[in-house]
Parts: sequence; C-alpha cells; structure tokens
Amino acid sequence: VESPSDLFSARTREGVGDALSEILAFAGATDLISFSGGFPDPATFPGETLADLLRELIRAGDPSPFQYSPTRGLPGPLDYVSERIERMDGRRPDQAELLITSGSIEALELVGKTFLDPFDLVVVEGPTYLGAIMAFRSFQARVLAVPMDADGGLRIDVLANLLETGARPKLVYTIPDHQNPAGVSMSAERRTALVGLARSRGFLIVEDVAYRELGFTDEIVPSLWSMAPDVVVQAGTFSKTFFPGVRLGWAAGPEVVIEKLVTAKQNTDQCAAPLGQRLLEGYGRAGHLDKQIVGARELYRRRADLLLGAMGKYLPEEVSWTSPAGGFFTWLTLPDGMDSVDLAREALADRVAFVPGRPFFPDGRGRTNIRLAFSRVEDEDIDEGVRRLGALLQRHWIEEGG
Amino acid sequence: VESPSDLFSARTREGVGDALSEILAFAGATDLISFSGGFPDPATFPGETLADLLRELIRAGDPSPFQYSPTRGLPGPLDYVSERIERMDGRRPDQAELLITSGSIEALELVGKTFLDPFDLVVVEGPTYLGAIMAFRSFQARVLAVPMDADGGLRIDVLANLLETGARPKLVYTIPDHQNPAGVSMSAERRTALVGLARSRGFLIVEDVAYRELGFTDEIVPSLWSMAPDVVVQAGTFSKTFFPGVRLGWAAGPEVVIEKLVTAKQNTDQCAAPLGQRLLEGYGRAGHLDKQIVGARELYRRRADLLLGAMGKYLPEEVSWTSPAGGFFTWLTLPDGMDSVDLAREALADRVAFVPGRPFFPDGRGRTNIRLAFSRVEDEDIDEGVRRLGALLQRHWIEEGG
Repeated sequence: VESPSDLFSARTREGVGDALSEILAFAGATDLISFSGGFPDPATFPGETLADLLRELIRAGDPSPFQYSPTRGLPGPLDYVSERIERMDGRRPDQAELLITSGSIEALELVGKTFLDPFDLVVVEGPTYLGAIMAFRSFQARVLAVPMDADGGLRIDVLANLLETGARPKLVYTIPDHQNPAGVSMSAERRTALVGLARSRGFLIVEDVAYRELGFTDEIVPSLWSMAPDVVVQAGTFSKTFFPGVRLGWAAGPEVVIEKLVTAKQNTDQCAAPLGQRLLEGYGRAGHLDKQIVGARELYRRRADLLLGAMGKYLPEEVSWTSPAGGFFTWLTLPDGMDSVDLAREALADRVAFVPGRPFFPDGRGRTNIRLAFSRVEDEDIDEGVRRLGALLQRHWIEEGG
Repeated sequence: VESPSDLFSARTREGVGDALSEILAFAGATDLISFSGGFPDPATFPGETLADLLRELIRAGDPSPFQYSPTRGLPGPLDYVSERIERMDGRRPDQAELLITSGSIEALELVGKTFLDPFDLVVVEGPTYLGAIMAFRSFQARVLAVPMDADGGLRIDVLANLLETGARPKLVYTIPDHQNPAGVSMSAERRTALVGLARSRGFLIVEDVAYRELGFTDEIVPSLWSMAPDVVVQAGTFSKTFFPGVRLGWAAGPEVVIEKLVTAKQNTDQCAAPLGQRLLEGYGRAGHLDKQIVGARELYRRRADLLLGAMGKYLPEEVSWTSPAGGFFTWLTLPDGMDSVDLAREALADRVAFVPGRPFFPDGRGRTNIRLAFSRVEDEDIDEGVRRLGALLQRHWIEEGG
C-alpha cells in the first residue's frame, strides 16, 4: 500500500528536500526507467472476467453489492477471506476476530486511532513502509526503528535490549514476509522470540502481510498471527494480489481488539465498499484470484532474477543488496559518504528513477541506501535501467575518490 | 450515510437500552414494515449499464480504475465532481478546493482528525445525523446541539446567543437541505446569518449536503459553501444518488483545509477506490446518473406523499410531524410523557419499526420523538405501517390517560 502521494508527503516530513517531488514530476517521462513506485503490474489485473462477474451480480438481483454493508463486512466476503487466511496461515479466524478494511493502511490507521496516545512508543523495523511511519506519527506517537539483517529480518536481540532499558512500546509493527523496502523476511526463530516478548512485555504486534502471498517459492514461514492470535493483529491487503483500485484488506486479531477497530471504522467510512467485497468474493470463489496470484508470482520472480543479474553485472563491487525471495523490492547499501538523495536527483538526468533510503526511516538514517522496486519495470528495461544506475554510481565512486 | 451498525453503536453510547438491537434483530422479519434505516431504495440503483461500463473501462486498457490513484482523486472523476457541484451550487471548486472521499462520513472523520482536540466544542443541530455525533465524539470533542424549527432549520438566534455567552465552537455541523432526521431545510436568511457568524466568530462550518440533490421540487437554496467558500467545508456523498456500495463522496472547502484533509486521508485509506471513481465518472458522463436521480426524486416524493397522507389518517391529533420537501425522513413529536424507546420496542410486536429520537441528540433529548424513513418502504406497505403505528399510539394515549 503505497502511492506517489506517500512519497511526496515523506519529502515534506522527512526533509529529504525536493528530490522526491522531482522524481515524481519526471515519473511520466516515457524514456525514464523507474524502479520507484511499489505498484503491482497492471498485467496481473483482472480482465473482462470482472465485468462478467458484475453482470452476474446485477442479474442475480441481490442488492448487497450496492447497499451499505455491516461495518465488519458482508457475510460472504468475510467467509471467503477467512478461508484464504486459513489456507495461508493454518488457522481460521473466528467471525469476531476478523474485519474487512479499505486496504491494509486503514487497518494501521484504525489500530493507531484505537490504541495510540500522544508520545506513545511504536517500534518499527528500520527501514520500514513509510505509510506506517506516517500513520503512527499522525497520532503523535514516537516511532523508533530497530535494525534488520538479511539473515532473519528484525533484530530481536536489539529489541530485547531496548526493552531491558525500560522502553515500553505499545505496538511493534513488522512486515515479516518479503519486507518493504528491505526485501528480507523474518526467520521462524525470530518470530517465536518476538511473540514471546509481546506476551511477556505486554505489547501488541501489528503484522503487515502485504507481500506474504507473493513468495517466489512455495516455502512459507508461519505467520505471527497464527502463532499468537492473542497478541497479534494481522493487517492484510488485496492490493498486491487482486488490485489496488478495489481498496480492500483485512485485520485479523484478538476479538477485543477487532471489536474496537470495528467501532472506529464506523466513523471512518462505515464499511469497505460492498461492490468491491462482492467482486472479490465472486472472483475468488471462481478460482480466478488463485490463478492471478500464480501468474503474479512468476512475473515478479522473473523480474527479481533479471534485476539481481543486472546488478551483478553493472554495480560497483562496493555496493551490496538484499536477495528477495518474494515481494517487490531489493535494498541497496552504498559505500559510506554517498548520499542517495543527491543520487536520486542526478539519476533523473540519466533517465533512471529510484527512491532514496531516508524516507523509510523515522530518524534520518538511510542516506547510503536505495530501494529498487522491480514490480512494475518491463522485463526488457531492467538491464538498461541498472546499467544507467551502475554508470552513475561508478562516476560518483571515482569522483569521490572511493 | 447510515448503517445498522450505527444504530447498534448508538445504543451502547446513548444508553438507549436494548431497543435498537431488538429492532435490528427483527429487521429481517418478512412481515415487519420498517421505517428504520436511512437507506436508498435498491430500485434506484444502476442496472446492467454498470457492467457494460466496466467492460468498456477494461477494454480501453487504461489501468487507472485498478491501480492506486492520487489521494485527492483521479483527474477525470475530480473534473466530473467539480462540474456537478457547479451545476448544483453555481460555483465550481478549484482543483485545490476539492477532494474525493470514501463517502461523506470520511470527510467528517478527516475534518475531526485534522481540527479537533479533546474538549473542543462542536455545535450540531438538535436532532442531527448520529454518525456525525459519533465521529466528532471519537476525537473527544464536546458536542452541543442547538435546536431547529420547521420554519428555517437551525435556530441561528439560539446559536448567536450561545456565542454571546462566550462559547467558542471550532466547528458548526449542519445538514441544511432536507435534514436527517428532522426533514426540514435551512432558510436562505439563516444561511446568510450563519456564514456571517462563522466569519465574525472564526469557526468552520461543515455543511453536509447528503440530501441536497433529492428535493421533491426544483426549488433549491444556495449552498453554504457557495456563499462562503472561505469558511465552509461541504461534505457530499454519492450514496443517496449513485449507490452506497461504491463508498464515494467529496469534501469541497478552502484550499488550506482541503490540503490538510488530503494529508490525513493518505494515512486513512490512501484514496477512494479508483474503480468506483471511474464507474461514477463514466456513468455520470453518459447521463445515467442524472436520469437515476430524476427517478429517485419521483420515487421518494411519492413515498413522502403516501406517508404524510397516512399520518393524517391514522395518527392521533396530539402527534405532530414535519413535512419534508426532499430527502428520506419525517420527524414526529409525541405528547409529553411518552417514551419513544419503549414505543419502538413495543412496535415490533405490532410488526412496525422506526428509530426513537434519542440517538439523534448528544444530550438525552428526543424521548418524545420518532424518525420515520420513507425511502425504503414499499409504496403498498406505507398505509398499513402507519396504521399499525397509529393504533399503537392511540393505545398508549388512552392507557396513559392523555
């Protein structure tokens, strides 16, 4: 869940200067190769099947796609989402443990509105999804980033040390699968350790599973929510699997938490659009969504492979990157002294775009990082795009006497 | 913008006891005649035209209905909404003065989130839309109701007196056209007086125009926003004109205000569903929406006429009611001593349902009031429904020695 306006706002909030707005201004240029936006590829979106489905819904004469729905969601779509979660996570949420949201960002907003008071502490991964940083900050929470590593994601040992010093987070927000922007996943051991800390220290884990269904292999690690439905709220989205324009997601968590989120949602938008709920259910029940996801996983795996290959070929050896096993992103680390905000601006002249690392941290880190999204770059542009980036980095590396 | 869950929550918040949940539990009973929900009639909803439109959108190959949109809205839909506002209000919002929202309740939420601190004062009409009371209270605002009358809506003289005593509201929320639940409209003179007060006293007017396009005649009073775009935010919805299941509305107001609402919306749901935005635009541009509204106005006018006729026939003369010139509602006032919560519960045994007045006030008033919604009662049930209500009231009137 990310949009150009996110980035724009990140600029103003994070003081990254004009680089991002320049990137966005250039985003429409036809010869620009953009690794910027974390968007799914339109090639994965439903085709005319969706129009057929809508016609069927209308002919059936059931007004539910058009009328208001209960805030929690329509019974059929709730049932369908429960089944999907059960298939992914091996545990089916009870009716009282589930809520259909208007995208997963709304789940974060509802959690924030329900639980956060000014100056409350929220721990996030550093780097993390910048929409989450903004959502928690909009409730005047203090947002603190705990580092990750490529071996197993969030450094639980650092979090444990932080807790030892007396820090008392209300929420710990994590994207355990194919993380945005880092492109790494949390290991099973760290998941166990994290839910242990949540139980012993009394914080709520917010698990964002935006990319969970987009692994490049069938290997899947148990979700935090399935391990600890008593202390985890899982926020999911259909933006990366169905399509973003439908604005649908879910929150699964302890009954008492979900009940509060439902109350908050009544005042936010009453209900997630019933038209979209019914289309999702129909599309999913007919097996189209599963097929779409199979195709999407192939597409994104192929692009990740192309990107990793091109980076090996063109990037200076002083640059390192993560090797994603799913999702949309890889995360680059440049040599000390480089400034990715300057580079991103300069890259536009070379007709290549990416997002510098700073907006993904709440604290100004990320100067030497770059996020590359491979999800929406045409296969045939990837090599050339990375070649341009490599040339730019080489030039800087030489200029700066590296 | 109202849903059964609203009413359910109103029960718990307003302490109306179990009456409303009982009403809702009975809502599915087939022989129950319900004047409860403020829902549009499904007979007004789009038919297969909408499926044709979706097919055209898909064939055109434009990914915008399926991808993320800018938070403010897609350019085409924004343009279409601007034109509609200009046609209704005689003033076209600048691009910077408009935002497409996920229903008008979201506009209220965003205004609340942006402007309200705990203990801030919000003035509303008494009675008013209970979703608004809940939305403002969710930011811990104090909500104060100023009475209305059938001659011209909100009693501006009472508001002026209140301001004289030193009350400093941040927001004044009004539904000037065919108000929910009162079924009255604000006169042109009072509108002028209200914007004068807003300018001299420095509060923001939130104008909810949910029923503005559903007048029974072509007579229309200038909107507050068109009179004073410097101090008014207009919150509109397509729920009553297009259909609720699309979750679309708008906020039009001063550029500085709209900019803040856009920022808040980024963290709420990123954007109103682009699929719905594009369907609205296509349906509207082809002239279908205007035709739908003509049909809806006829339908609701006919039902209002039937209801008013039946009330004249069956209700004791001690009961008075408003005569709506549009919208979905009429508001009944019963003799002192009656309790409409008890009546509503008892009415279920007589197979007729309505909402008692108390949830529509922030302060426990409304004991002797009833809201009747005529929007979704079949024509042929109206007479019988009112006959049942009349018999119930007669029985009470006699029992209580009236």
